[in-house]
Amino acid sequence: MIVPITLNLQEPITYDITIHPLPDLVFDRKVAVITNPTVSALHLDRLLESISAPQVEVVTIPDGEAFKTLATVESVLTALFEAKFDRKSLLIAFGGGVIGDMTGFAASLYQRGIDFIQIPTTLLSQVDASVGGKTGVNNLYGKNLIGAFYQPMAVYIDPYFLTTLPQREFAAGIAEVVKMAVMFDSDFLAYLEMNNLKEEAVIKEMIRRSVTLKAMVVNQDEKEAGIRAVLNYGHTFGHVIENETRYAKYLHGEAVAIGMVMANALAVELGLMSQEEAHRVLNLLQNNGLPTDYRIQDVDRFYEHFFLDKKSNRGKIKFIFPNGALGTYVMRDDIDEDTVKAVLDRFGEGA
Amino acid sequence: MIVPITLNLQEPITYDITIHPLPDLVFDRKVAVITNPTVSALHLDRLLESISAPQVEVVTIPDGEAFKTLATVESVLTALFEAKFDRKSLLIAFGGGVIGDMTGFAASLYQRGIDFIQIPTTLLSQVDASVGGKTGVNNLYGKNLIGAFYQPMAVYIDPYFLTTLPQREFAAGIAEVVKMAVMFDSDFLAYLEMNNLKEEAVIKEMIRRSVTLKAMVVNQDEKEAGIRAVLNYGHTFGHVIENETRYAKYLHGEAVAIGMVMANALAVELGLMSQEEAHRVLNLLQNNGLPTDYRIQDVDRFYEHFFLDKKSNRGKIKFIFPNGALGTYVMRDDIDEDTVKAVLDRFGEGA
Repeated sequence: MIVPITLNLQEPITYDITIHPLPDLVFDRKVAVITNPTVSALHLDRLLESISAPQVEVVTIPDGEAFKTLATVESVLTALFEAKFDRKSLLIAFGGGVIGDMTGFAASLYQRGIDFIQIPTTLLSQVDASVGGKTGVNNLYGKNLIGAFYQPMAVYIDPYFLTTLPQREFAAGIAEVVKMAVMFDSDFLAYLEMNNLKEEAVIKEMIRRSVTLKAMVVNQDEKEAGIRAVLNYGHTFGHVIENETRYAKYLHGEAVAIGMVMANALAVELGLMSQEEAHRVLNLLQNNGLPTDYRIQDVDRFYEHFFLDKKSNRGKIKFIFPNGALGTYVMRDDIDEDTVKAVLDRFGEGA
Repeated sequence: MIVPITLNLQEPITYDITIHPLPDLVFDRKVAVITNPTVSALHLDRLLESISAPQVEVVTIPDGEAFKTLATVESVLTALFEAKFDRKSLLIAFGGGVIGDMTGFAASLYQRGIDFIQIPTTLLSQVDASVGGKTGVNNLYGKNLIGAFYQPMAVYIDPYFLTTLPQREFAAGIAEVVKMAVMFDSDFLAYLEMNNLKEEAVIKEMIRRSVTLKAMVVNQDEKEAGIRAVLNYGHTFGHVIENETRYAKYLHGEAVAIGMVMANALAVELGLMSQEEAHRVLNLLQNNGLPTDYRIQDVDRFYEHFFLDKKSNRGKIKFIFPNGALGTYVMRDDIDEDTVKAVLDRFGEGA
């Protein structure tokens, strides 16, 4: 007896991303705000004033990439079980990318999935991480290697929170903005070069354009089967740098900035972009306070690390490069090992 | 500036469930078989003979509900990282419901999701657990409280594996079959009453009808927003029983059998079914070797436990009952606490 029974499931997910002063948030269900001590000290009172709900819990987790682990997510879940949260309860991610990724992951896991809202407070999470539903944690083998695709109910982006953001973290967010521009939009890149990125109006425009590009990409390819992988420009190298430095030395955006410079060096070597174009990107990053060099201790080990990256399918490393002109991209998984290593060899000599 | 940017994601998921001797399985990617020592000793050689792939790993995890934990899933993930599995790699769940739930969960988490196939080897997983994408683990607070909705690529049901299944586990599977019939199909219930459920042809027919009903339900309501909750008939009580006995005394199906008897007693009390109908279900369960009574030590504590169940939204317990006639159902979340406790009080006195 052969009985092929077909399951055919389909679920549209729609949500709004709003760039606007934080609205009043009224819920008829239990709510937990997941945050860290830094954001909590600066802005929690303001958030709690805007929330109206029958029960509001605050779960504070340690600050920083080093605590982006399954153990931390478990501690969040335990807090929710203790507060008897149910399937209709809601989580609010209140912080940067680490908070957003872990809150979304916890929401995806709690009783097989409850709603969550992103209220990103860093530039990096406002322009990039809060949109698109990538959630997860790091482990010994690398960054974001355990996680889920799980979309928020809504994303509220309030640039006000950036007024208390340290310079260094602001710069880290610029790295992801530059990534978007270099990959998809040469006009936007020129706008970034010509404006002071610390001006309020420029910040808003920068967020708007970045999020619009991000939504365009995610709408085409939620699960990263194709174009979404372009957003990993700079990340293939950046993730190795973060892993080698145990997530302690560089902010994510800083590692991505160095990673873009490395990708560009390889792109120049392959004839995909000119030295002048590479310099334009380098200058934009440096002018905004981002690091652009890194001393690779052991090129062979650095190269081996690529294979643990999620982009490396079936033993091939998938590189993302600018292609011909800034604002365009190409994915390549056929780059010769020696070519990659020769370019990597040039880094860290004060180049 | 208010810029509502809308994300609109949509993803149809289709897969086949085949009831048939295990076919040859040919893959062009890395494959890991996740199994336990019991199934491995009996059937792993046969499975491995049928698989052709560039790399085949076998990950053996301890047998039984007590090991259905996040720690076990982490150990599976670690084995996959060690074997350098990538996003195109594939997992095969080879065992009963516990193996299937944990393999699916591990597949959902590994690099935010890789493919998996279900090859269920117990009656319970063949008729129920392998279909529909509920994955997850237990924790201190209850059963399947951490997990994901994550669908397999395919489900291969081979009744041959049941030839080595212990009587007690076979009976546990019957409980889920009876659940389906009582909720949705009075003809099927009569078929179960009139036939010897150990005959090969009857087993195949029983699997076919159960899986067809399950697929019908899941197609309507993958995420359990409505009708899928009907499949929890007997489980509201059963989960508390399993939790109180630390997942050690009863097989899942056994706890569900007792749970259905409890639900029926409450349904009779509420006038939703007759005493005669309740007896028909009781007899069918007992005739197939299932337990139908349980001594509740502390009715108040038992009742409190309901609120940790995933069906208990916003402080209300959602009960599933037969409704008027066998083969029909009703969901009720308005049952008076005293009524429930009075019915629970009657259990465990050798009734």
